[in-house]
Amino acid sequence: MQSVSKIIADIAAGRDTPAGAIARSRAAIGERDNEIHAFEALAPEGTGTASEGPLAGIAVGVKDIFDTHDMPTRYGSPIYDGFRPRADAPIVAMARARGAYVIGKTVTTELAFLDPAKTVNPHDPAHTPGGSSSGSAAAVAAGMIPAAIGTQTGGSVIRPAAFCGVAGYKPSFRLFPTGGMKTFAWTLDTAGFFAANVADVALFAALLGGRDLGADPVTSPPRIGLYRSEIDNEASAEMRDAVTRAAAIAERAGATVVEVCEPEQIRRGRDVHAVVQGYEAAISLAHELAFHSDELSGVLRETLEEGRSIPPNAYDEARRAARHARKTATGLFDEVDILLAPSAPGAGPLRSLGTTGSALFNKVWTLTGNPCVNVPGLADSAGMPLGIQLIGRFGRDKQTLQAARWLEGEIAAGPRP
Amino acid sequence: MQSVSKIIADIAAGRDTPAGAIARSRAAIGERDNEIHAFEALAPEGTGTASEGPLAGIAVGVKDIFDTHDMPTRYGSPIYDGFRPRADAPIVAMARARGAYVIGKTVTTELAFLDPAKTVNPHDPAHTPGGSSSGSAAAVAAGMIPAAIGTQTGGSVIRPAAFCGVAGYKPSFRLFPTGGMKTFAWTLDTAGFFAANVADVALFAALLGGRDLGADPVTSPPRIGLYRSEIDNEASAEMRDAVTRAAAIAERAGATVVEVCEPEQIRRGRDVHAVVQGYEAAISLAHELAFHSDELSGVLRETLEEGRSIPPNAYDEARRAARHARKTATGLFDEVDILLAPSAPGAGPLRSLGTTGSALFNKVWTLTGNPCVNVPGLADSAGMPLGIQLIGRFGRDKQTLQAARWLEGEIAAGPRP
Repeated sequence: MQSVSKIIADIAAGRDTPAGAIARSRAAIGERDNEIHAFEALAPEGTGTASEGPLAGIAVGVKDIFDTHDMPTRYGSPIYDGFRPRADAPIVAMARARGAYVIGKTVTTELAFLDPAKTVNPHDPAHTPGGSSSGSAAAVAAGMIPAAIGTQTGGSVIRPAAFCGVAGYKPSFRLFPTGGMKTFAWTLDTAGFFAANVADVALFAALLGGRDLGADPVTSPPRIGLYRSEIDNEASAEMRDAVTRAAAIAERAGATVVEVCEPEQIRRGRDVHAVVQGYEAAISLAHELAFHSDELSGVLRETLEEGRSIPPNAYDEARRAARHARKTATGLFDEVDILLAPSAPGAGPLRSLGTTGSALFNKVWTLTGNPCVNVPGLADSAGMPLGIQLIGRFGRDKQTLQAARWLEGEIAAGPRP
Repeated sequence: MQSVSKIIADIAAGRDTPAGAIARSRAAIGERDNEIHAFEALAPEGTGTASEGPLAGIAVGVKDIFDTHDMPTRYGSPIYDGFRPRADAPIVAMARARGAYVIGKTVTTELAFLDPAKTVNPHDPAHTPGGSSSGSAAAVAAGMIPAAIGTQTGGSVIRPAAFCGVAGYKPSFRLFPTGGMKTFAWTLDTAGFFAANVADVALFAALLGGRDLGADPVTSPPRIGLYRSEIDNEASAEMRDAVTRAAAIAERAGATVVEVCEPEQIRRGRDVHAVVQGYEAAISLAHELAFHSDELSGVLRETLEEGRSIPPNAYDEARRAARHARKTATGLFDEVDILLAPSAPGAGPLRSLGTTGSALFNKVWTLTGNPCVNVPGLADSAGMPLGIQLIGRFGRDKQTLQAARWLEGEIAAGPRP
């Protein structure tokens, strides 16, 4: 995989140039994307590769749910065939302003929902790369680009990162802008990032947002809460074992590991996620449902029709439950620095199953807005990546990324059973 | 002025038809808008006027900062000349789904900021109608349409409503969707509404959102907090007198009126509004600043350039101050139902002064997200409207509108000095 940190260090040391790094990304896309199908559109060759700024030389893939002024923006839907926005989405404009090169639009599932798209998992093309940020995760995993931007409304950053074996970072809610993104659910939609490893994704997000997100790794091991909930039964035996292994590695490396049982308010938050998402999506996509119903997938049309029938007071009640879950989640971090849980029930399912996998282990943390990181490095017996998820306190993105970086290093260094 | 309640009642009673009501709105626009300049674009004649639904027969003006699929959307900026979005903004799609007729796009100042637009004040064309929702307020005030949609990031709903002598309602933050709106500042941008009087604006918002917002007026007078702060000195003597008169009328009609002194945390919130707005606007409009700087007004370009220089930690600090202000604001409603304050420093200034007026009395309540209502009915010695503002507890939109409706009625019935 391409490394953000290495490219930036090599350019700083005069061993590489921005144009050279971007030419390599473009060549890698040319070589691999006819198999991976991670890109929906590419920037015209020979434009804008000589930028200056902290992200100069970094070729970024942007999920095709964000507007770009110089490339078509399809939102993964035939409704938007041929659409060319007038302006870049704010996060795209930020990337360009920092010197990044927006090399292409990465494949999204239809309107960032569940209907699987054409992208395959670089570890095995028979498997889904996850969704809805399918192309962003796969493009990084396939070594085509060093960094990508995606979004998560349920589990659309952490899940594909886990399935593709890359680092995924869902920031605290509203830390990065979602303007110019096709809205799905306005209290849930969160911009997120993909890179080869945690240090790379932290560096990319830090340089993009101008914030310190933990350039220095932690020197003392974190206090880890091994998160236990009723949905653990939905995880595969191999995934449960991966979490246990990660906890054991952390403990041997000096971390404190305690079990944290899911509070009722957070369980309840997971239950109401669908109400919040469905109600908001039915409003957000009311135009598409009214004028383009025939061009929607069955799964999305049904979700919107169900969402339209949710009464406002049921939505208001769900939002209250979300607030309670958020407050309760904050309290969990009085005793621990970080929570450890599966990123997904297991490895990415077979594409023939017609699913991008389950957001079960992600959605409540999208609802509460806590920062989450998928830590890569573990795999199942078939060699498919198994992602583990670290969840941090709201607003403590730096500490979350530092702990994830520490754990990733210990997993890479540690003994394997 | 046209009345939402009357049109709906007349249609229900068979005295009017949706098509007839809309034809009258269209005729009124034809007669008056060449003087008022409230509209940026009109819907093609003869389309969609026979809708069904609770808002059938209501011609709605939509601030031209929201996308519409069937009309150009200019965001008040030459950068967007000729732009035709693919989809309706969610709030526009909601209005259509409830049977409203989107009769036209109303004039906005440039990108919903401060640069005055072409609209004049219907009470005196030498005066500003206020901004940024200039056309929405003026179109209702001039009797062209019964209801309009606008947005407020500083004072862009309450201020023009006050200057134009109509009811303006800024809902609790995120009660209505802002997707498909050109983002200015994502933690501040709030959709809001205009109608002839408070009962009309409450009915319109209730039918649009499907929520009970006080169909029945309050039977017992509210407990009113007369809000006192250091900015009261910025209000004209006539405005201070208008607030005093309103309080006296309320008290004579049975309301409890107590003075509430501005807490330090709310004063601090008002101070940091510019930091939050400037930082977010510089990101939201980074594309326009990078690619279309020459097509921006001086006031906006300077604001964006200043915003770009605000360090993230200063923004984070301002957001923390905003959270403190929000919590403190909630506490104020333990003792009172509603706060009473000026909607603006006075009547709408002369257009020759090159300003849409000041958001000084509005911006902290946008930052805290509290519901606000401009109550019309008072005027200065020249006959120009003086708006007074009721501020309610976050999430208590119904109670806020009920109290505003009660006060509006007492002002209309009460003695004048």
